[in-house]
Amino acid sequence: MRKERTDFPVANVRRHLEPGPVVLVSSAWRGETDIMTMGWHTVMEFVPSLVGCIIAAGNHSFELVRRSGECVINLPTTALTDVVVGIGNCSGAEVDKFAKFGLTAVPGQKVKAPLVAECHANFECKLEDDALVERYNFLIFEIVKAHVAPRPKHPQTLHYTGDGVFMVSGKIVSRRRQFRPGML
Amino acid sequence: MRKERTDFPVANVRRHLEPGPVVLVSSAWRGETDIMTMGWHTVMEFVPSLVGCIIAAGNHSFELVRRSGECVINLPTTALTDVVVGIGNCSGAEVDKFAKFGLTAVPGQKVKAPLVAECHANFECKLEDDALVERYNFLIFEIVKAHVAPRPKHPQTLHYTGDGVFMVSGKIVSRRRQFRPGML
Repeated sequence: MRKERTDFPVANVRRHLEPGPVVLVSSAWRGETDIMTMGWHTVMEFVPSLVGCIIAAGNHSFELVRRSGECVINLPTTALTDVVVGIGNCSGAEVDKFAKFGLTAVPGQKVKAPLVAECHANFECKLEDDALVERYNFLIFEIVKAHVAPRPKHPQTLHYTGDGVFMVSGKIVSRRRQFRPGML
Repeated sequence: MRKERTDFPVANVRRHLEPGPVVLVSSAWRGETDIMTMGWHTVMEFVPSLVGCIIAAGNHSFELVRRSGECVINLPTTALTDVVVGIGNCSGAEVDKFAKFGLTAVPGQKVKAPLVAECHANFECKLEDDALVERYNFLIFEIVKAHVAPRPKHPQTLHYTGDGVFMVSGKIVSRRRQFRPGML
């Protein structure tokens, strides 16, 4: 099901990425698109909104991302568990993943990589720094545009532990009163 | 309470870090120790076991980690929620955090930084690459020794979303049968 999404401040994407969910990375290059699953990523800065991630050179998406210098980081929920597993277990060199998994590609506003419409959030990214690509396949992106579904406020996300096993996000706990104002 | 922990293969630490928990980073330099909370980290490689993380220069721990080239990444559970919040809201420049929060420093086997005995797991780290420290405060560590409590198998971990709000790890879902053998 395609999600309704609204603009979201790029400086606040840590809200969705810092908890460590599996994400889907979509990319495009010369008419070809691909999607891959990714679990190795970290927020790196609020402003500019930076995220660092590992995209192994063996992934079909690696070349699309490297050549275009763009991608979209999409946040799936547990409604897409089988799709997430399926995408991670086939190669874009052999199949069109949007078609195979019945996903809707929506044009990005600031990048040519497509958004996956069925995801809870979409973060349009431009490659900011490739200094560690050769050594670690580590790419640093600036999130230049963020789209997030207005509800639910806390979607059920998937967190990969290896061995085919996922942890699903659980209850929400606020400790806001124990924080110093400057730390919020 | 001090946890019993046993040796754990360093190539498998993604099991604990990839889901994205808040961790406690402990460090030591010339007789001084410190602990900080950290939410911005990512697994980068299995062998060697690499993890990349952001430690902002404003943290008192930053200098201890930089000068010693070592740290321990400790995994707290929800039993330590108030301790995690407390550690993130005071500075090691002003207080001895082990003493203030009643935590037990256990000597590392391969590093001089102390383990936090009350945590579910402890990963002894040596600084592997500081190429992106100046620009992003991004440090890449090799985990050279891992200790993990044998139970529970899936501890309740804390995942920070900003604004003083945490997500607590929830149920475990296996999709192992849907994985291609080479992807496990």
